[in-house]
Amino acid sequence: MPKTDSPLDWGTRYAGRMAGMKASEIRELLKLLDQPDIISFAGGIPDPALFPQEEIANVYAQICGDRKVFDAAFQYSVSEGDAGLRRWIVGYMAKRGVTCDMDNILITCGSQQGLEFLGRMFLSAGDTALVEAPTYLGALQAFSAMEPVYDTLPTGQSNRTVASYRDNAAAAGGTAKFAYLVPDFANPTGRTLSVAEREELLSFARDLDIPVIEDSPYVALRYDGVDVAMIQALDCAATGSIEASRVISLGSFSKVFTPGLRVGWICAPKAVIAKLTLMKQASDLSSSAINQRVIATLAEARFDRQVAQGVEHYRVKRDAMLAALDTHMPKGVQWTKAEGGLFVWVTLPDHLDATALLQDAIEQARVAYVPGHAFFADGSGRNTLRLSFSLPSVQMIEQGIAKLGALVAQAL
Amino acid sequence: MPKTDSPLDWGTRYAGRMAGMKASEIRELLKLLDQPDIISFAGGIPDPALFPQEEIANVYAQICGDRKVFDAAFQYSVSEGDAGLRRWIVGYMAKRGVTCDMDNILITCGSQQGLEFLGRMFLSAGDTALVEAPTYLGALQAFSAMEPVYDTLPTGQSNRTVASYRDNAAAAGGTAKFAYLVPDFANPTGRTLSVAEREELLSFARDLDIPVIEDSPYVALRYDGVDVAMIQALDCAATGSIEASRVISLGSFSKVFTPGLRVGWICAPKAVIAKLTLMKQASDLSSSAINQRVIATLAEARFDRQVAQGVEHYRVKRDAMLAALDTHMPKGVQWTKAEGGLFVWVTLPDHLDATALLQDAIEQARVAYVPGHAFFADGSGRNTLRLSFSLPSVQMIEQGIAKLGALVAQAL
Repeated sequence: MPKTDSPLDWGTRYAGRMAGMKASEIRELLKLLDQPDIISFAGGIPDPALFPQEEIANVYAQICGDRKVFDAAFQYSVSEGDAGLRRWIVGYMAKRGVTCDMDNILITCGSQQGLEFLGRMFLSAGDTALVEAPTYLGALQAFSAMEPVYDTLPTGQSNRTVASYRDNAAAAGGTAKFAYLVPDFANPTGRTLSVAEREELLSFARDLDIPVIEDSPYVALRYDGVDVAMIQALDCAATGSIEASRVISLGSFSKVFTPGLRVGWICAPKAVIAKLTLMKQASDLSSSAINQRVIATLAEARFDRQVAQGVEHYRVKRDAMLAALDTHMPKGVQWTKAEGGLFVWVTLPDHLDATALLQDAIEQARVAYVPGHAFFADGSGRNTLRLSFSLPSVQMIEQGIAKLGALVAQAL
Repeated sequence: MPKTDSPLDWGTRYAGRMAGMKASEIRELLKLLDQPDIISFAGGIPDPALFPQEEIANVYAQICGDRKVFDAAFQYSVSEGDAGLRRWIVGYMAKRGVTCDMDNILITCGSQQGLEFLGRMFLSAGDTALVEAPTYLGALQAFSAMEPVYDTLPTGQSNRTVASYRDNAAAAGGTAKFAYLVPDFANPTGRTLSVAEREELLSFARDLDIPVIEDSPYVALRYDGVDVAMIQALDCAATGSIEASRVISLGSFSKVFTPGLRVGWICAPKAVIAKLTLMKQASDLSSSAINQRVIATLAEARFDRQVAQGVEHYRVKRDAMLAALDTHMPKGVQWTKAEGGLFVWVTLPDHLDATALLQDAIEQARVAYVPGHAFFADGSGRNTLRLSFSLPSVQMIEQGIAKLGALVAQAL
C-alpha cells in the first residue's frame, strides 16, 4: 500500500519566472463577450461577418478531396512552416519593401507566439525590454514571463539620452535587449509612426546597438492616407540587406482572414530564424499543417480582395465611432483618430479612473472597454481607456458610445 | 540619411538559455521522409492511411455550413480550450481511472507544448529534471531550453537512495523539480511499466516530494495484453483526489486521429491548470478553435472505433517488424517486444556505433532509423537505435529490416 503523505505544495515548486504571471484584464473581459446585452468595445476581435465562409468551406473540401494533399495536411510537418505559405509571405514582404527569401520566414501560432519566442530568445531575468507607453498588453505578458524590466522608448519624446538607457538597464542588473513597438495603428492607441519617427527610432536602436521588433498585425487595414514604409524596409534599404538589418518583423493573418487558424509569421535574418526554428520545434514541433494550407490557399486566391472588404467594412465602423464620440463625449475628453486598425484610444480628464469607471460601465451602462493602464508597463495611464470598433454593429457603436458618454459626463 | 553602422552580432544578444538549443537528429531525419526510395523507420509518424478522411471532410462541411458554429470556430477563443472537448476528455480520463472536471484540463498544441510549458513552469537554470535513460528526445529538447541538469530515474534499477538524488541536485546548484516518464509503450524503448513499478515510482516521488509528469501519447494503442493503470489514477486512488495528487498527465490526439491539428491536453490539479492557462495565454492566446471543434466532434463520434482500427492496423506492422528482426538480425542483437505504441528498441553489440552506422544505412541500404544515443540525456547508448513500424508498409518493413540486418551483420 502506497504512502499517502501530505499533498505537494505546488506554489513552492514553480520556477521564479512564474511569479510575474498573473491573470490579465483582457482575459477576464473576453468572458463578457458571452453576455448578449453588453456592448463590448473590449478585445481586438475581428468581425466574423468578414470571415470568408464559402471560400473556407471550399478550401477544406478541396484539401479533403485529394488524398495525397489531405495526408500531408493532417500529418506532422516541418517546424519552419508550410513552404507554399512561406513563399507567399516572401512575395508579400517584397511588396512592403523587404526583400527576403523563405529562410527568412518562420510560421508561428499567431503573432503572440512570435512575441513569446522573441522574449524567450533575448531576455534573461533583469534584462531591459524597451517598449512604448502604452503598448500591446499581450507583448508585456509574453515578455514578463522572462522576468525583464521595462524602460520607455523615446518615440514621441526625445529628452532621454542613449546613455541613460544603458545606465538604467545596468542598474536593473542586465542590458537593454530590444526595442518593441507596433508602428502601424498601434494597439492600444491607434497611432501610426511617421517615416521620420521610424528613422529616428532606427537611429536610436543603432546608437544603443539593439534589435528592433516591429509588430504589425493591422498594417493592411488602412482606411485613410497612404502606407508608411515598414521599419524593416527602411533598415534593409539603409544596410543593403535583411541579413544586415537589426529589425525583426511580426505578421499575422488573424486580422485580415481569421484568428481561428492561429497563423502568423516572423521575418528576420536567417541566423535568427534558424534559432527560432529550433525553439518552434522544442515548443510545439510545428504549426498545424492543415491550417497553414488553408491560409496559403486563401492568401493566394484573395488576399487583396479580403483586405479591400475589411477596409470598406471597418472604415464605416471607425467613422461611426469617431462621430459618436464627437456627439456624446463631454468636454475634456480626448481620443485618437486612427487611420487604420481596430482601436480608438480615449483620454479622460486626469481625475477620472477608467478602471473604477468600468464597473459602472458594465453594470449600469452595459458597455465594456479595456482600462488603459493595463497597457502601461508601469501601471500608469489610469485616466485612459481603449475602445475597439471592429466587432459591434454601427448601431451598437452609436448606442454604446452614447451610454459611455453619459456615464463619463455623470462621473465628471 | 540614416547611419549604416556594422551589423548586429546576434549571437552575443541571446539569453543564456539559447546556448543549449541545438539542431536535433530527429529534425534532420524528418527531411529524409521526402526521399521516396528510403525506407524510413525514423520518426514516430502515424500512418495517414488511418486518418479518417471522409469523416474529417464531413466535420468541416458541417462546421462551415452553420454560420453561428462557423463564426465561433474561426474566432479567437478561450485559453483553457474548447469546453466540449474538455468535457469529452473528462469522460475519457474517468474511464482511465482519473476522476476530474473541466478545470483540471488545459488544451495544448500537441503534447509537445505541454512538455515545454511544464519545463518552463518548474525549471530554473541548474535545477534537476529526473528522466529515464533513454527518454523521449522532444522532452529533453523542451526541458533543455530552461538550462536544467538531468539525473536518471530509478525505474528498472533501485540501487540509488533518495538522498543521493537530493545531493546530486544540490551539487548541480538547484533542486530536483520533477520526474518525467512515458510509462506506456515508451518512446523510444516501447517498454511499459508494470503496476508494481508505477507504485514504486510514486513512492519514490513521495519520498523526494516531487511532481510526476506522466506522458502517455500512445496509451490507447495496445496490441496485446491488458491496460496498466495510469500513474495518475494510482495516485488519485491513494490520495483520494486529483487535487491532492502529485501527478500531471499529458494526452494527445495525434497518434489516434491526426497530428496535423496539433491538439493535446494536460490533466492536473486545478491550481496547476490555472497557472498553465496563463502561460498558454501569454504563449499563443489559445489553440486553434476550429481544430479543437474538429477533434471534439471526431472524438465524440468515433474515438473507440478509431482506436480499434489503429490497433488492428499497427499490430500487423509490429508483428511484421518483430518477425523480420527474428529472421534477419545476426546473433548478439537484441530488441524489445512492445505491447503497443509505435517503436521497437534495438541494442547492438557493445562495440557497434549506431550513429556511425546510420550513414551507411542511408547511403547503402537506403534505410533510416534514429540512433539511440539521442534519447540519452548523457549521450550514452551509442550501440542502440530506435525503429518505428508505424509508417512503412508490411512489405517495406520486411525489405528494410532485411537490409538493416545485412548491414549490421557486415559491421560485426
